[in-house]
Amino acid sequence: MTTLPATTALPFKVADLSLADAGRHQLRLAENEMPGLMALRAEFGASKPLAGARIAGSLHMTVQTAVLIETLVALGAQVRWASCNIFSTQDEAAAAIVVGPEGTVDAPAGVPVYAWKGETLEEYWWCTDRIFDWSAEAAASGAEWIGPNMILDDGGDATLLVHRGREFEAAGVVPEATDDASHEYRVVLDTLRASLELSADRWTRIAAELKGVTEETTTGVHRLYELHAEGELLFPAINVNDSVTKSKFDNKYGIRHSLPDGLNRATDVLMGGKVAFVVGYGDVGKGAAEALRGQGARVIVSEVDPICALQASMDGYQVARLDDVVGEVDIFVTCTGNKDVVRTAHMLAMKHLAIVANVGHFDNEIDMAGLESLEGAERIEIKPQVHEWRLPSGRSILVLSEGRLMNLGNATGHPSFVMSNSFTNQVLAQIELWTRPEQYPVGVYVLPKHLDEKVARLHLDALGVVLTELSPEQAAYIGVPVEGPYKVDHYRY
Amino acid sequence: MTTLPATTALPFKVADLSLADAGRHQLRLAENEMPGLMALRAEFGASKPLAGARIAGSLHMTVQTAVLIETLVALGAQVRWASCNIFSTQDEAAAAIVVGPEGTVDAPAGVPVYAWKGETLEEYWWCTDRIFDWSAEAAASGAEWIGPNMILDDGGDATLLVHRGREFEAAGVVPEATDDASHEYRVVLDTLRASLELSADRWTRIAAELKGVTEETTTGVHRLYELHAEGELLFPAINVNDSVTKSKFDNKYGIRHSLPDGLNRATDVLMGGKVAFVVGYGDVGKGAAEALRGQGARVIVSEVDPICALQASMDGYQVARLDDVVGEVDIFVTCTGNKDVVRTAHMLAMKHLAIVANVGHFDNEIDMAGLESLEGAERIEIKPQVHEWRLPSGRSILVLSEGRLMNLGNATGHPSFVMSNSFTNQVLAQIELWTRPEQYPVGVYVLPKHLDEKVARLHLDALGVVLTELSPEQAAYIGVPVEGPYKVDHYRY
Amino acid sequence: MTTLPATTALPFKVADLSLADAGRHQLRLAENEMPGLMALRAEFGASKPLAGARIAGSLHMTVQTAVLIETLVALGAQVRWASCNIFSTQDEAAAAIVVGPEGTVDAPAGVPVYAWKGETLEEYWWCTDRIFDWSAEAAASGAEWIGPNMILDDGGDATLLVHRGREFEAAGVVPEATDDASHEYRVVLDTLRASLELSADRWTRIAAELKGVTEETTTGVHRLYELHAEGELLFPAINVNDSVTKSKFDNKYGIRHSLPDGLNRATDVLMGGKVAFVVGYGDVGKGAAEALRGQGARVIVSEVDPICALQASMDGYQVARLDDVVGEVDIFVTCTGNKDVVRTAHMLAMKHLAIVANVGHFDNEIDMAGLESLEGAERIEIKPQVHEWRLPSGRSILVLSEGRLMNLGNATGHPSFVMSNSFTNQVLAQIELWTRPEQYPVGVYVLPKHLDEKVARLHLDALGVVLTELSPEQAAYIGVPVEGPYKVDHYRY
Amino acid sequence: MTTLPATTALPFKVADLSLADAGRHQLRLAENEMPGLMALRAEFGASKPLAGARIAGSLHMTVQTAVLIETLVALGAQVRWASCNIFSTQDEAAAAIVVGPEGTVDAPAGVPVYAWKGETLEEYWWCTDRIFDWSAEAAASGAEWIGPNMILDDGGDATLLVHRGREFEAAGVVPEATDDASHEYRVVLDTLRASLELSADRWTRIAAELKGVTEETTTGVHRLYELHAEGELLFPAINVNDSVTKSKFDNKYGIRHSLPDGLNRATDVLMGGKVAFVVGYGDVGKGAAEALRGQGARVIVSEVDPICALQASMDGYQVARLDDVVGEVDIFVTCTGNKDVVRTAHMLAMKHLAIVANVGHFDNEIDMAGLESLEGAERIEIKPQVHEWRLPSGRSILVLSEGRLMNLGNATGHPSFVMSNSFTNQVLAQIELWTRPEQYPVGVYVLPKHLDEKVARLHLDALGVVLTELSPEQAAYIGVPVEGPYKVDHYRY
Repeated sequence: MTTLPATTALPFKVADLSLADAGRHQLRLAENEMPGLMALRAEFGASKPLAGARIAGSLHMTVQTAVLIETLVALGAQVRWASCNIFSTQDEAAAAIVVGPEGTVDAPAGVPVYAWKGETLEEYWWCTDRIFDWSAEAAASGAEWIGPNMILDDGGDATLLVHRGREFEAAGVVPEATDDASHEYRVVLDTLRASLELSADRWTRIAAELKGVTEETTTGVHRLYELHAEGELLFPAINVNDSVTKSKFDNKYGIRHSLPDGLNRATDVLMGGKVAFVVGYGDVGKGAAEALRGQGARVIVSEVDPICALQASMDGYQVARLDDVVGEVDIFVTCTGNKDVVRTAHMLAMKHLAIVANVGHFDNEIDMAGLESLEGAERIEIKPQVHEWRLPSGRSILVLSEGRLMNLGNATGHPSFVMSNSFTNQVLAQIELWTRPEQYPVGVYVLPKHLDEKVARLHLDALGVVLTELSPEQAAYIGVPVEGPYKVDHYRY
Repeated sequence: MTTLPATTALPFKVADLSLADAGRHQLRLAENEMPGLMALRAEFGASKPLAGARIAGSLHMTVQTAVLIETLVALGAQVRWASCNIFSTQDEAAAAIVVGPEGTVDAPAGVPVYAWKGETLEEYWWCTDRIFDWSAEAAASGAEWIGPNMILDDGGDATLLVHRGREFEAAGVVPEATDDASHEYRVVLDTLRASLELSADRWTRIAAELKGVTEETTTGVHRLYELHAEGELLFPAINVNDSVTKSKFDNKYGIRHSLPDGLNRATDVLMGGKVAFVVGYGDVGKGAAEALRGQGARVIVSEVDPICALQASMDGYQVARLDDVVGEVDIFVTCTGNKDVVRTAHMLAMKHLAIVANVGHFDNEIDMAGLESLEGAERIEIKPQVHEWRLPSGRSILVLSEGRLMNLGNATGHPSFVMSNSFTNQVLAQIELWTRPEQYPVGVYVLPKHLDEKVARLHLDALGVVLTELSPEQAAYIGVPVEGPYKVDHYRY
Repeated sequence: MTTLPATTALPFKVADLSLADAGRHQLRLAENEMPGLMALRAEFGASKPLAGARIAGSLHMTVQTAVLIETLVALGAQVRWASCNIFSTQDEAAAAIVVGPEGTVDAPAGVPVYAWKGETLEEYWWCTDRIFDWSAEAAASGAEWIGPNMILDDGGDATLLVHRGREFEAAGVVPEATDDASHEYRVVLDTLRASLELSADRWTRIAAELKGVTEETTTGVHRLYELHAEGELLFPAINVNDSVTKSKFDNKYGIRHSLPDGLNRATDVLMGGKVAFVVGYGDVGKGAAEALRGQGARVIVSEVDPICALQASMDGYQVARLDDVVGEVDIFVTCTGNKDVVRTAHMLAMKHLAIVANVGHFDNEIDMAGLESLEGAERIEIKPQVHEWRLPSGRSILVLSEGRLMNLGNATGHPSFVMSNSFTNQVLAQIELWTRPEQYPVGVYVLPKHLDEKVARLHLDALGVVLTELSPEQAAYIGVPVEGPYKVDHYRY
Repeated sequence: MTTLPATTALPFKVADLSLADAGRHQLRLAENEMPGLMALRAEFGASKPLAGARIAGSLHMTVQTAVLIETLVALGAQVRWASCNIFSTQDEAAAAIVVGPEGTVDAPAGVPVYAWKGETLEEYWWCTDRIFDWSAEAAASGAEWIGPNMILDDGGDATLLVHRGREFEAAGVVPEATDDASHEYRVVLDTLRASLELSADRWTRIAAELKGVTEETTTGVHRLYELHAEGELLFPAINVNDSVTKSKFDNKYGIRHSLPDGLNRATDVLMGGKVAFVVGYGDVGKGAAEALRGQGARVIVSEVDPICALQASMDGYQVARLDDVVGEVDIFVTCTGNKDVVRTAHMLAMKHLAIVANVGHFDNEIDMAGLESLEGAERIEIKPQVHEWRLPSGRSILVLSEGRLMNLGNATGHPSFVMSNSFTNQVLAQIELWTRPEQYPVGVYVLPKHLDEKVARLHLDALGVVLTELSPEQAAYIGVPVEGPYKVDHYRY
């Protein structure tokens, strides 16, 4: 890695540009499925509200993200990009973005992307570091130094790097990892240590420049609220995750699509007639259960929250504890965002060749560490991201994507139409923070409801949906403007 | 009416007590379906947290409400009751409550109920007035005067009477109705005028006594928020409607049950293969659409809110404007809470014998006034609550429950299990306001989430639901207590 | 009963003609839902292919049957009618038919109907006897004697009476009942004994006159195949039951409608979240399971046939034995056509207030005899057709319709649209046998597929279905006529 | 091709045996999903009822077929195999079968397979020819000549070759192709011409040796019935297609699985909210519609058969003509088995990037020939089996698998569990014909119902299904043996 020129706009593995054409075809198809983003290009392409914005983006480098990136550029922004997951990059999408719509393999004219499928953790954090290095852009513009002034984040890794970097610069030293630190956190520390060696105030200058972050996920949002509660948040943040058109669409309808897709690609197993166990009946679990039932599986749900448990029951699902039914289940799907939801003891009690899949959270949702350290367990790769684990019980189980998000690892993640909703929220959030900073002192915000409704509105035509309009009398009768917003803030949809 | 003794505990039509035994059987069956209320009796029957509470209740006098009333009594409260709808009383339930579990026809020992099926508006408001007259109880206890100190309201009529009564007493006069006042509002004014003749400060004293109100419905809650915004709210209010276990259960799962029930009882028409049009895709519309699809109907939805419209589309429904498809629809169901949703012009364009049903709101959701004044339209009663309207178009339509809530008028409303959720919220809200008044200065509150979760929890055993428990490590990992609450307040379920 | 004038056209209890107007309204609504029958009136009303036919009809005397009867009359037939079930008559429908569309209460001009809700078995068989007595018609036409020449049967009771009557006339004596004979069979023997006393050859003459029978049900068809196998069938029979548009519609879609309707009217219990057990996954069970799932119940199915069991599993249902899960079930629904499917031991093991409902067959499908003779069991009528049985277990169960078909007893049976399919088959079958007797030597036949397809075709417009037409090239390619029939005879749909 | 040694056991492209290990892993997983075949190995592995059978198999060379082949071998048969489709071979499965469970790459010990993914038509028919050449086996056994004595066929190509080969040998000459002959038929004639040059009686001898054929598909069965009707069928045939456990499972539940799988792998398009048009509502269409609805699509169905159209309507789908709605559809799925179902005019009227997919039949179901010859149309390969066609309308459409079966071309066909049902029927059919030839004179037969039920029975344990047993009294009551079969032959399931 040390031989890599740190300022190149073209990261190494993606430099195989033969993929760009394939990626460009896919972008064109995806654009047809992302009417929200295309509508923003039409609305704002001329006025370029993001002119001046320099966005450091950290989000799965997929075909859909490629359409997002080109939308940000169309609205005037400069962009650098990394993935937020070591497995999720679609190399052809990265290649297409690097080359750019007008560029060629020999004269790339796109956006610097630091992402490829199958990064090591060292590579991953190096890539994330790269989106904060705007020296190439500085050189091009003749500036002495420029940094990014906006972050678009998924999971909070980019935001974390800035906050930790600045903290350690203030302390003058990057601390040693404690004994129980994860491997990944050690890499983060190493990355920042290397940075500190090169510059004593790099992150401090970047932090000062940043106007805000827009965050995609529950996990990242959780970190932001914590930071803000501790008084440590350095810039305003918009919580994109909790837009209705994000959380209730991405989580539910995205998983409804990508869970069965991943199961099929990984195993080709008939879901019909099978017993499927869905751990957690939040939005993700609701989408998972619906998809499995739609394929004829019998779904059992587990829940810790009595309200969600009651919903699952009202929706016709059996609600049981995993411990009580583990031996009769064919397919396990974790949807909780918690850890140790499927434990080693469960795995030892499963049917032969039961399938274990995670669509909720990190790879600790299934106790992969426990499995890996289980004496007598043997791991056989059936194909990439599909492993048979022969267990001391004499039975095997099939673990997908090594316990990580299998809808990304075994399938292609959420489909374009779903991501168009999420990403239209992202772009609107970037515009909000960039163009109306006075409205957003340091803090964590959700998008105002009229923008949430706008996101939905931009996706209706593509589905043939014809909206009804309130008459002025009707609007007055229920006390809302004719053009919305139509609901109180706490409305649950 | 004037000949009625105003202080009797036994309102006239219900005095036919031969119904009491039938009602008692039904109560016993309903108790089995209302595990939340029965659990509260078990938990609080000894400690009687509602001792001292004198509750004026205004809520549909059904079998389920009867179980609620007996629960309030079991928890120590004194109660008087009226219905909140002229059609919704189940006379046998009223009779059983008047007689009481221990009483007999000759020696009734129950709760005074002022409600019967098919009240006039004059009777209705007289009944509502009666629940504020506690002179019989005063006489029994030897007090000079006592009034109610709690209201349990559905739609806000009881609360309205107190607020208007006090207002007019302060003014010293009940104003004349304006020319455009509805018939009902004239009756309200007459009722208060009669009261003012008897007492100059009756409502003022009552208002001073009241510790709070717990309100059941969207409509009533809307009035409360308005009152509070205008600074006129006289006592604290708990918004029971927006408990998750109320709004997301009652509205969705209740309608899923009672809409097809009402259609069947009213018309016996096969829903399978029919085109059903659901106006509005809020919780009520979601339940209606699911029920109709579950019976094999093809459902078309209309919406004004783009988010709800997008949800309907994602759930597989066509979303169209009523005007564009009115001529191909067999069954119309309004679920909006707005007015003039189905208009006369729509009705004239409908298929012969199309069915028009309202499960959303008042009888102005369908323009009944327009229909009634339509020249050449003729109304034929097929059976009670089912009318064929012969239209000048040469076609007929079938209007259910005269445009009022047909799940109450043509069926028996929400089933016991659903109401057990709503009413367990009601009882907990009454306990909150009564026992912890210091927590609730004048204002409008929703129940804290831990009580919402408790309501759900009390209903799980009956459904065979087994809840999973978080380990302390898991709870810490996601930052919640092991015993809940488990979600942030803005979580949408 | 002996005092009744045996030849009256107006049976006694129905003589209360105040019901006729109500029935007429309902007929008018039902006609709108029975497009197949109305289309036959339009097609054959002028040519009157049933002229000369004298039909003895034995089929539930409901509103739908009333439309059938008037269709038969419109096509030229003379008709007499009885119900085929002691509980299923809708008195207003019977009254409307007796009065006739043109008649008045004082001058009835309709069809003689011998049926009322709640017959005794003695009354039932007397009524059935009456449809074979055409002396009034003989008198009116001046003939010395005439008998019916066609039977339209449901369950085979009318056909049974002719076959047994002729057999006993040949023997010269009606045998004594054996010790184990059912009460009902004793009544049959008494009825025939009374007939034999009046005439030695009445049934022999009737049998000679009969050109055929069209039979509605599985049970009746089963009897016909047995009779024919034994060489005893006296006239040709058309098996209407096995038309696709009957068995796959009536059984499946009819039950999907009327099962939840009956449950609601009987108990008002929320199906959502409940555990429902469906015994048998034939067409009836498939419809029952779909209806229950559509209301949010969790459905468990039992089956003896491995193919149907596999279908249930593929459709996402748990398949278990009743014995293994009886204690966790809230609602039991029998759909088998077999006996002793729910036994006393099962009932003793059920949850408190579990609901037991039969939509399959006779009242022996649930072991009602065993329940009635169970020591310590107590029967409490909650309302007509809904009984709580307090069991020695200390728990109660709710038995609907005394174990008989609850979709008829607690609801109103199959809805008009479904019956329009069945009855259009009936009318076409009557036309076939009456107009083309040479095509039907004694035997049991199903309707040719082109007529089955015709029945379907006549019901499409009402549902807005637009059929696609094969081009001649396409028809030739798959080897069918452009106008159908389109499938091989063994096609399963 | 002429340079290939005609007698080799190892066809050329598959000779890359590095795939064998991967295939073997997949076989092991598939065996777990094919309980019917594994049960037959357990039941018949010792008695080897297929000893002496030499089976020429022509059926998609997939992983599932590999399990079938090894089952046939386990039951004593000798086998040679070709695929019945130029695209459907899974090379790793072919490789694993060639190597055999005990073999190695250097010393293959499996079954000769002539199949690879992406054959030309010339290669395809050469492969089919190879399964009839048993000279290697003759050499191994020291016989002068041996031929196959059983065919296992899918689509009838192997059967066709024998019949045509024998016919032309009798004529002494292979006729010239007529002008309108398809390219494929010309290849068939060339193949047989080459054969006739080498031997004058090869097919005549083979035909004399053959004891029968078991045929998998509707298309092949149709050919067999035609051959038999014309008196030209040379040996008995069992119609495996019309076993209930084949046609109602494979067609419906197989497509329910593989249609969305193919759509996802080909396009990654969100089905939720989309308008999908399903052409044909037979078993395949029923499965397709259910799958699409299960993913939240709005499904419109077209039908020519009024019975199936009525079923679609009762199941809640809009039924319309393609011409009337073509412009509002996002996804087209053909399920008819007919030709020219989607025509060029339709394609020109479609939305931009509408998806066109065939799961019914040959590539003439969609008029691919018309599209290919359409002036101004341009074909762009997005990826293999996914082509964008830019049309003169200015819009593009996406055609999957070049109009051929996309569940095979874009996905992996029916999953193992479904194929286990089909193939268990195949093995039982082979056993029937081989061991009880006296029961099957030349003709076309379906398997007796008890074997159909046996197939189902062998698949229940794997799904956790517990079957209920009839008591002897119950069995007698409905007139069936306790152990089945349980239904009349015309029962429709």
